[in-house]
Amino acid sequence: VTYVDGTKCAVLPSDDRGLQYGDGLFETLALSGQTPQHWALHLARLQDGARRLGIACPASDLWRQDLAAASAGLSGRHVAKLILTRGSGGRGYTPPTDARPRRIVQISPWPTWPGVTPEHGVRVIECSVPLGRNRVLAGIKHLNRLEQVLASAEIAAAGADEGLMFDDRAQLVEGTRSNVFLVIDGALCTPRLDEAGVHGVMRTLVMKAADSLSVAVSEQAVSRATLAQASELFLCNSLIGLWPVREIDGPAPRRYADFALTRRLIGALRDEGSLA
Amino acid sequence: VTYVDGTKCAVLPSDDRGLQYGDGLFETLALSGQTPQHWALHLARLQDGARRLGIACPASDLWRQDLAAASAGLSGRHVAKLILTRGSGGRGYTPPTDARPRRIVQISPWPTWPGVTPEHGVRVIECSVPLGRNRVLAGIKHLNRLEQVLASAEIAAAGADEGLMFDDRAQLVEGTRSNVFLVIDGALCTPRLDEAGVHGVMRTLVMKAADSLSVAVSEQAVSRATLAQASELFLCNSLIGLWPVREIDGPAPRRYADFALTRRLIGALRDEGSLA
Repeated sequence: VTYVDGTKCAVLPSDDRGLQYGDGLFETLALSGQTPQHWALHLARLQDGARRLGIACPASDLWRQDLAAASAGLSGRHVAKLILTRGSGGRGYTPPTDARPRRIVQISPWPTWPGVTPEHGVRVIECSVPLGRNRVLAGIKHLNRLEQVLASAEIAAAGADEGLMFDDRAQLVEGTRSNVFLVIDGALCTPRLDEAGVHGVMRTLVMKAADSLSVAVSEQAVSRATLAQASELFLCNSLIGLWPVREIDGPAPRRYADFALTRRLIGALRDEGSLA
Repeated sequence: VTYVDGTKCAVLPSDDRGLQYGDGLFETLALSGQTPQHWALHLARLQDGARRLGIACPASDLWRQDLAAASAGLSGRHVAKLILTRGSGGRGYTPPTDARPRRIVQISPWPTWPGVTPEHGVRVIECSVPLGRNRVLAGIKHLNRLEQVLASAEIAAAGADEGLMFDDRAQLVEGTRSNVFLVIDGALCTPRLDEAGVHGVMRTLVMKAADSLSVAVSEQAVSRATLAQASELFLCNSLIGLWPVREIDGPAPRRYADFALTRRLIGALRDEGSLA
């Protein structure tokens, strides 16, 4: 089910700048019945991205109305994807000053992850597709996702569950659709996202949960040498929750058997209602 | 006028991966009556990009049929934009193995460039928005254009005609919608495009024209220091042709009064029919 600007509709004008230039943002979130999970955090990220791109973000109420209409009658878990584009038109790349942003709400079935058994950890590869660095776009969930598309093709070809992406300096940034945490000496560490990557909502929740468990968390540059120090590794996003990593395939294959802190965090997030 | 997959139609499905991820390519070319200019070069770049992204490029005949239908009855100059997306669907970022690529052909009026008088040169700024580097995407004309959109907003705010874009190492790459050539000691030089930028069709034609005039051309890293050595500077693309630069606004403003080689190249390109 898709709503475009409040109307049930599965097409959009071909002059939309989301198509023409990737000029927009998106959010992917879990719906429980009609209730979007962690709405405030998703909306805050969308608003932050819109501010940085100079797009007027529609009010929360409009999104919530569309979500309610698109998910009417649903029960159980579904995925909601929100897309905000700058709208139609303009002379080439230049954003029109009178642009009318367009909002798209899509509801999909809850995904399955064939072969993934989170309790046993997932298998990831090191993607060869690099992430470009650009401080102007880092952190926000914009529509320029070709790097993730190409990396995901690598992952599918390798039959892996996810892939780690590195920048041109060989610094770990994130998974294609997840953030990454390392456990080193009992503390959590996760890549800085000031030059590439997306500030994930689940990443924020993990950091809060770690705080509540009195586990130290640092955001830092994560080289392959840092990665090699990790005793545990996990991925997270709003749909998968937390996936412990069992195995990294690649030039320097590694296996992990210790999921203890990951499981404590999953427990803490479940207790506070942040994870289903 | 817009054609989608051979049918006159101004909408496309909202699950198109061009919108969802910028998963596609485009070409912008000049139409003279019904005739696309430099068709072979535009098609070759599109095919190269499609190969690199793993998208099956529709045959030349299909594009030509769409172009003929969309431009039927037109005379004079128009702009044709071709968009090739990977099509609809797939599970998240992963490209579906059975994707049916979608082709979009849009015809627009020939643009005007208010205030631009190419014979007197144009005024450009140094954009503060950087270009990210990614060897996997460099050179091709893909749909991930947020950097150009944000830089174009800077240019519009400055009331300039175009803007120069630099990478994170302060190397000049290109304009937002043009390639850049410098004249140093009577020879041409233009930035290498192996980590960022688009291999422009007019760039190729300029390099051939320089050859025919026995003017040396090099592709190289262009720092601000290199830029400061240039006695002439010009921009080029398939629509504007060649624009000599009169003035660079920015931290180190520069003015250019010598357009001699630029004019010789324009003359040579006109003589061979490459420029209107």
